[in-house]
Amino acid sequence: MRSVDYSIYLVTDRSLAGGRSLPDLVCAAVAGGATCVQLREKDTAIRDFLAVARELRALLQPLGVPLIVNDRVDVALAAGADGVHLGQQDMPIEVARRLGPPGWIVGISAESVEDAVRAEREGADYIGVSPVFATPTKTDTALPLGLDGLRAIRRAVRLPLVAIGGIHEGNAREVIEAGADGLAVVSAIMAAPDPRAAAARLRAAVDAARSRRPAASDLGSDQKTHGEG
Amino acid sequence: MRSVDYSIYLVTDRSLAGGRSLPDLVCAAVAGGATCVQLREKDTAIRDFLAVARELRALLQPLGVPLIVNDRVDVALAAGADGVHLGQQDMPIEVARRLGPPGWIVGISAESVEDAVRAEREGADYIGVSPVFATPTKTDTALPLGLDGLRAIRRAVRLPLVAIGGIHEGNAREVIEAGADGLAVVSAIMAAPDPRAAAARLRAAVDAARSRRPAASDLGSDQKTHGEG
Repeated sequence: MRSVDYSIYLVTDRSLAGGRSLPDLVCAAVAGGATCVQLREKDTAIRDFLAVARELRALLQPLGVPLIVNDRVDVALAAGADGVHLGQQDMPIEVARRLGPPGWIVGISAESVEDAVRAEREGADYIGVSPVFATPTKTDTALPLGLDGLRAIRRAVRLPLVAIGGIHEGNAREVIEAGADGLAVVSAIMAAPDPRAAAARLRAAVDAARSRRPAASDLGSDQKTHGEG
Repeated sequence: MRSVDYSIYLVTDRSLAGGRSLPDLVCAAVAGGATCVQLREKDTAIRDFLAVARELRALLQPLGVPLIVNDRVDVALAAGADGVHLGQQDMPIEVARRLGPPGWIVGISAESVEDAVRAEREGADYIGVSPVFATPTKTDTALPLGLDGLRAIRRAVRLPLVAIGGIHEGNAREVIEAGADGLAVVSAIMAAPDPRAAAARLRAAVDAARSRRPAASDLGSDQKTHGEG
């Protein structure tokens, strides 16, 4: 399995960009400490989706930051992205993996322990635990899992967990302490007046939480690539 | 280039199926004379889209009827479909062709002579000329091209032309006589009380029109596979 640092996993949302360019925002986030980028487009023509995916790929590859494309396996392949992120109703994991090149990243959102266990069985590379808290940026999600729900998923699977939904600087530490390997954020970076500073504060919160957290083996998350404590 | 019979090109629309199953409708249409099927899904979860694509593929392959998937190259690939149909804002032709296996069909919609000429230059296998007449089944289309617009595209390119938009038994003959190699129909079959009979009447109209039409060489359409006259 490829080593990926999911610590600060930026999910794009151009509706929050307030007129700023998506590549500029992504660039600032990475400069601040984002370690992974998911391009998510919902109502964008595929030709434009592909164009921005290629632009981000060109920007991120020299920096060693993985680009993951939401939902569209074909766009991910055409852009030479590092992988794809799937929802429960998107393409099945094994199909996406078969379509992609060796070693590419296939992640999936899980809204329950059952989803997460199935994702691990089906060969996902990581799990997006969604939503941890209530969030205004997605309206079609299940009820928030809360930190208890995140802990339950942590106990049930060994895959890297990326927590998403209502995560910001103020709750970053408790999310990491509950067993997340990374924080997926949308508005906390995309809507920030200074996305670089916002990413840096999140990164600092993650690093601080890790220095307090029990050893990974106690949490069943020994597949992480980042150091512990 | 692979030989494909575009004579009666069924485009699916489950909203017109009136509770009937899509595979049953497609099966009836093929029994009546449909020669090619495009699966078009707009608001369907990708997992369901893929499942129905696989079901249609299993149904059509033994009959030698090509299955073409609208827009989603990844679904087409995962289902083992024969090709993909693209809109002007979908994935570029050369990208779709590169993602697909050798010999697969890449078609594109064209709303003008310029679109059609570009499609031919970019290596499309066929062109969907859209819309020939006004149609209620697509609301995001350009103004109708009319028979004169179809003739102008016929003069400009050599690729097979599949006419779409408001085509039915009553105007099938004049559309073929204007230079179309095939008729793409949605509601004329999908909404018909007897889809097999509807497909058979369309097929008869196409065959009758061909028996009156000038030789293919006069129309610049020498890449067709069906006999003329």
